[in-house]
Amino acid sequence: MTSVELMAREFSHIGSRVPKYDAPEKVSGDVQYLLDLEMPGMLHAKVLRSPYPHARIVSVDVSGALRVPGVVDVITAKDVKLNNLGYLKDHPPLKWGKVRSVRDEVAAVAAVDPERALEAIHAIKVEYEPLPSVTDPLRALDPGAPLVHEEFGTNRANLDFSLEFGDVDDAISRADIVVEGTYSTQYVAHNPGDTMGALAWVDAHGTLNVIANTQTPFLYQRWLAESLGIPAYSIRVIQPYIGGAFGRNLDVYPHDVIVAALAMRTRRPVKLQFTRSEELQNAPTKQPLIARVRQGATKDGRLVAREVDAVIDAGAYVGWGVFDARVMQYTVTGLYRVPAVRFRTTVVYTNNPYTAAMRSAGNSQITFAVESNTEELAERLGMDPVEFRLLNANAPNTVTPQGAKITTCAMSDAIKEAARRIGWRGRHSAGPNRGIGFACYFHVGGGARIYRSDGCGATLKVDDFGGVVVTVGGTEIGEGLDTGIQLITAEALGIPRDRVRVVINGDSTIRLWDVGTHASRGTFICGNAALRAALDAKRQILEGAAQLLGTQSSDLDLRDGFVYSRSDPSRRMEYDKIVRRMHFSKGARGTVVVASSFYEPPSEEPDDRWYGNVSAAYGFGCQAVLVEVDRETGRVKVLKVVSAHDAGRVINPNGFEGQVQGGVAMGIGLALLEELVLSDGRVVNGSFEDYRMPRITDMPEIEAVSVGQPDPEGPFGVKGMAESPVIPTGPAIANAVADAIGVRVRDLPITPEKIWRNLSAKTQ
Amino acid sequence: MTSVELMAREFSHIGSRVPKYDAPEKVSGDVQYLLDLEMPGMLHAKVLRSPYPHARIVSVDVSGALRVPGVVDVITAKDVKLNNLGYLKDHPPLKWGKVRSVRDEVAAVAAVDPERALEAIHAIKVEYEPLPSVTDPLRALDPGAPLVHEEFGTNRANLDFSLEFGDVDDAISRADIVVEGTYSTQYVAHNPGDTMGALAWVDAHGTLNVIANTQTPFLYQRWLAESLGIPAYSIRVIQPYIGGAFGRNLDVYPHDVIVAALAMRTRRPVKLQFTRSEELQNAPTKQPLIARVRQGATKDGRLVAREVDAVIDAGAYVGWGVFDARVMQYTVTGLYRVPAVRFRTTVVYTNNPYTAAMRSAGNSQITFAVESNTEELAERLGMDPVEFRLLNANAPNTVTPQGAKITTCAMSDAIKEAARRIGWRGRHSAGPNRGIGFACYFHVGGGARIYRSDGCGATLKVDDFGGVVVTVGGTEIGEGLDTGIQLITAEALGIPRDRVRVVINGDSTIRLWDVGTHASRGTFICGNAALRAALDAKRQILEGAAQLLGTQSSDLDLRDGFVYSRSDPSRRMEYDKIVRRMHFSKGARGTVVVASSFYEPPSEEPDDRWYGNVSAAYGFGCQAVLVEVDRETGRVKVLKVVSAHDAGRVINPNGFEGQVQGGVAMGIGLALLEELVLSDGRVVNGSFEDYRMPRITDMPEIEAVSVGQPDPEGPFGVKGMAESPVIPTGPAIANAVADAIGVRVRDLPITPEKIWRNLSAKTQ
Repeated sequence: MTSVELMAREFSHIGSRVPKYDAPEKVSGDVQYLLDLEMPGMLHAKVLRSPYPHARIVSVDVSGALRVPGVVDVITAKDVKLNNLGYLKDHPPLKWGKVRSVRDEVAAVAAVDPERALEAIHAIKVEYEPLPSVTDPLRALDPGAPLVHEEFGTNRANLDFSLEFGDVDDAISRADIVVEGTYSTQYVAHNPGDTMGALAWVDAHGTLNVIANTQTPFLYQRWLAESLGIPAYSIRVIQPYIGGAFGRNLDVYPHDVIVAALAMRTRRPVKLQFTRSEELQNAPTKQPLIARVRQGATKDGRLVAREVDAVIDAGAYVGWGVFDARVMQYTVTGLYRVPAVRFRTTVVYTNNPYTAAMRSAGNSQITFAVESNTEELAERLGMDPVEFRLLNANAPNTVTPQGAKITTCAMSDAIKEAARRIGWRGRHSAGPNRGIGFACYFHVGGGARIYRSDGCGATLKVDDFGGVVVTVGGTEIGEGLDTGIQLITAEALGIPRDRVRVVINGDSTIRLWDVGTHASRGTFICGNAALRAALDAKRQILEGAAQLLGTQSSDLDLRDGFVYSRSDPSRRMEYDKIVRRMHFSKGARGTVVVASSFYEPPSEEPDDRWYGNVSAAYGFGCQAVLVEVDRETGRVKVLKVVSAHDAGRVINPNGFEGQVQGGVAMGIGLALLEELVLSDGRVVNGSFEDYRMPRITDMPEIEAVSVGQPDPEGPFGVKGMAESPVIPTGPAIANAVADAIGVRVRDLPITPEKIWRNLSAKTQ
Repeated sequence: MTSVELMAREFSHIGSRVPKYDAPEKVSGDVQYLLDLEMPGMLHAKVLRSPYPHARIVSVDVSGALRVPGVVDVITAKDVKLNNLGYLKDHPPLKWGKVRSVRDEVAAVAAVDPERALEAIHAIKVEYEPLPSVTDPLRALDPGAPLVHEEFGTNRANLDFSLEFGDVDDAISRADIVVEGTYSTQYVAHNPGDTMGALAWVDAHGTLNVIANTQTPFLYQRWLAESLGIPAYSIRVIQPYIGGAFGRNLDVYPHDVIVAALAMRTRRPVKLQFTRSEELQNAPTKQPLIARVRQGATKDGRLVAREVDAVIDAGAYVGWGVFDARVMQYTVTGLYRVPAVRFRTTVVYTNNPYTAAMRSAGNSQITFAVESNTEELAERLGMDPVEFRLLNANAPNTVTPQGAKITTCAMSDAIKEAARRIGWRGRHSAGPNRGIGFACYFHVGGGARIYRSDGCGATLKVDDFGGVVVTVGGTEIGEGLDTGIQLITAEALGIPRDRVRVVINGDSTIRLWDVGTHASRGTFICGNAALRAALDAKRQILEGAAQLLGTQSSDLDLRDGFVYSRSDPSRRMEYDKIVRRMHFSKGARGTVVVASSFYEPPSEEPDDRWYGNVSAAYGFGCQAVLVEVDRETGRVKVLKVVSAHDAGRVINPNGFEGQVQGGVAMGIGLALLEELVLSDGRVVNGSFEDYRMPRITDMPEIEAVSVGQPDPEGPFGVKGMAESPVIPTGPAIANAVADAIGVRVRDLPITPEKIWRNLSAKTQ
């Protein structure tokens, strides 16, 4: 039975509301996160970090630390040979010579408890010679600006995501209207439940075992090995239950390498896990963006050109956040139909924190810029924003200028549904101090080839009692991949859902490769791997049944736990009985049902011009937001969000709605509340008292709407949508605020102070 | 490359001395056995057992136990519905109505620590009405003997292993010489390092998890489910490191069911593990045997007939020990070439302990009987025992009367080597009070089809760095299967041994089925599964390499970590580089190397006459023993053992020698030292002070000799031999004692007292 045939029939599981697979152990408290894990003889590590954003290290004296009772090891860069981390290999796990940001690791301690470790950290004497710092990315390229990495001779990082398709200058010059603006987004913390950390030990075989809440266990193995200079096959990565990550844990960080090095030196288990304030101060942040956007359109509202100049502040080292630019590319070139597009990027080193990808990986930032500008353009055209968006909406079976092959696409339906359900009646008609705003998005929905392989493997076994264990390379970080895998496996095999046990996370050495959980790819990619393994297992069972029953397997099907004859459905037998007979029938050479698969999506790495179809499917949607603004305080209250998505077939409405609710919450945080405030590179609001995430009282009514058709490449038609709801929330709110009070805020977050200052300026 | 081709070339690993795979963690103390395992909130279970071998239970009052602080649950048969255990389903996990042996389980307690549990056990009041017991299996069938199971109306168990091939009566009547004798073996304890036990809990999904030191995880799952009356797919069996088992843990026992029931009732983890004295008192024992043997021969020394009448004392319930008779069948019918064979069995219930298989599963007992009788026959014929054995030795490419298809067989070489190396110069020529004895054996060497499937599955994955993880269904109980799997995998793939990680034991739900570790089958059966998975993975790598290098895979081979051209070996590339390219090459649809296999040996279940080829290969050997007897004390000292085995190709000499040394030690225990002394069904020497196992000072010089050729069905030619060395040790010692002092002891163990009494009787 092919995937297409499968999609044509009625489902037993797909589309039904099922609780999250790991809900029982999470509700009961049986789950153990990294925070809960301990080992006998385990040491605790702490890191001494630079207090300066930029300084020369004159001397380090660790003798005091070594005298603290209970201290087992103290290391600096002089004690261990570690290779640099990161895409540009610009990031030493332990710093020597100089520090380039406040978080920079200068020394580390392993001691019998965290208190002694901290005491030892305080006993290390470091003499610094402070250097002038540069924390404004726009000034970092000025001649004479302090150099973050002197050896490069410039603060411009050796990365360029610029591209151009079509003749932008010509199109702009011929446009009837051109609107330009500069938009910026802030430093934001990921703030999952889990803080960053790792627990490492060397076992008796000499294998380095690491329990890490990484999102990319197989890349972690590779990069950790490279930094430690040991063979990757001697590293075993184990993932515990992970309490969220949101992109922060895609990379290997200095503390990962430090913990491993301490474990290798002490031959004892060593654990390091950030406290919440360490997390807020030292974890990589969401990538901030400064983007000048210029769009041109014809009088009748057709987009003809888009140009974006982006400044990407890498901070002191190039982290994954910088590669947000690759996601931005696709929105710059692909959101709405625009024939001529240009994207210029400048990646700049500063003495600020370095960055990580965060849910949508650049798309929430660039969509804020583009959709704010789009709204301004529509306004200048005098066009209804819904009408304008419908006119330019993406359409199925088109190719974007950058080469994204759009197959299924229901963006127009999403726009219409959002407008209808929010009660859109045109501009400035939502009532006094109220406004409605819209924003659309274009995002990968079938993986994202940011690495040479975007695949995932699955293995599946059926035991003698019909119990199925499906083991996937994918990573569960709370997103619900486990649930999707169970649903897809049970549906494809044709058996009750409770027979399927999903093995995910845990020991990565027994799982097949997966690039990691990011880019909303899990259910699409790993689901496709599980689907293929399940269909193979089903084929084996039907062939076994045909042999046992003396019939053709083509006449047999498996459904709801029974193998039955298609021509005479009353002839049927429990599938587990078939499996037992295949294994145990006298005279037969026994066989057991086992299958494996590796799904590599039909996407492609971009070429030198950054042209290429990066994903096997794309997601689209539109969000409509109703806000109310308090003119006295400048406070914006979001009253309602309609979040309409073309995510192909929704296989589990609970999961779909959960992602929408979480994404909208995070989007509200980005739009209105959250900001890591920096002063000379240092976070000054590093606690939950000072850093304001959305609370339940900040949450609006949310309507999650599914539009569109099953995608032919997705398992049972699904497209990824985990990141999507966060993307358009910010610009939709900004557009709603403008609709409500005529104030356009172009730099996030939209704080009461900014509103109030804008209103005050207007009334003066 | 086929298995045959593989065997023709020089080996990189096979045949080299390698340390045991798990030696590092065992030596370092990192290993955790069941004894070491604890869980938060874990309860400890204790069992109240019958003090009588046979009694009616009049009343049980658990109220006192429930009042003990810290007691969480108390159960009797009235509180939980449990189905009977065992092949004949004659064994209730908790007894009601009456008890049939001293160990019978009447009630069980779960409490916060073992002390409270024990206190509660003592607080349970049971009123018994003692019944007459029957503990002599020969008297159990007398009319009027007390009935162990009244409902059966007889003490004869409903199991018959009798068979006859050829006309025995005719052959005996025409034999020149007939020698008859009755031989018996004793109750013996398995005494592995690990004691029996289990740790069970129900997880938030409702799955019953059991950590058990079982040898048969997949049968354990089935039988536990049957007894508990729950679906087997809701049970997950996890094996820890296991410190020996020797056949004792092939079955599911009452305590396994009790622990699971307590965990299900209390919803807390519950653990029960025997203390050493509980183990000696309550664990199932080796199967004792009483066998009358009659053999006939021609004047010139050719065996013409063999007849054995065996009494098998099942104890109160039929355990796996009773099925030792199936192994005995093959020795009765197959040891030496005998055209007419008869085996009569009587399986009897008594109020004695029930029994389990123990290393060789009946073969050490029956070989003691047959080889003692053979020696007596040779002596009566006036023939040299070596000559007699050579004359009747098994030969390759023959079929035994019971249908065992002997392929490879080097028994004659084994006899010659044993005689040469022990310095045999004929009877009574070993010096004063010294004697040399011989015994041969015939044993399964390619699995043993005692269950409908004798197969094993393996899965294998190669990671991007050349790291290989091979996961087998087999069970490591200390025998070295892990090491064999690593060797076979590394050799078959053609890579360094340290790249191969073996996953064995642990979570059985992620492993493919295996019938369990018994019958010396591990390296042969599971090794064949691993071999096939490794060859499949190698094929994938060579095909991938051929595609990448633009050549034919037939011209490529993989050896010592390099893929090279057969026609030009200087053209080569690291295999891990090939694997990475297969996965990551631009443009290629990525693929990862993963393989699985299920090996079911070409053996057959016996038919109604017990005819059938039970194993895919057979092992043969001969042991020569030099003893010295102290005529004053009757003490026998074993000075030297030559242990010659046709075990096909020896893939790891360390493992081969380790099995020989352990088997000889166990054989010396059986022959001279060990006996569980029973008094009215109760073990009276239940401690290591009173139960005497061999110590290092009891050990002789041991020469382990390998004879024979690689077996065509075994992986790299191996045949199983884990049990073999224990089999002939007893009769060889008995024969050596007879050679030394002319005293024939026909009942094991050969204690100083028996020797002394025999010598005293002679001199009187």
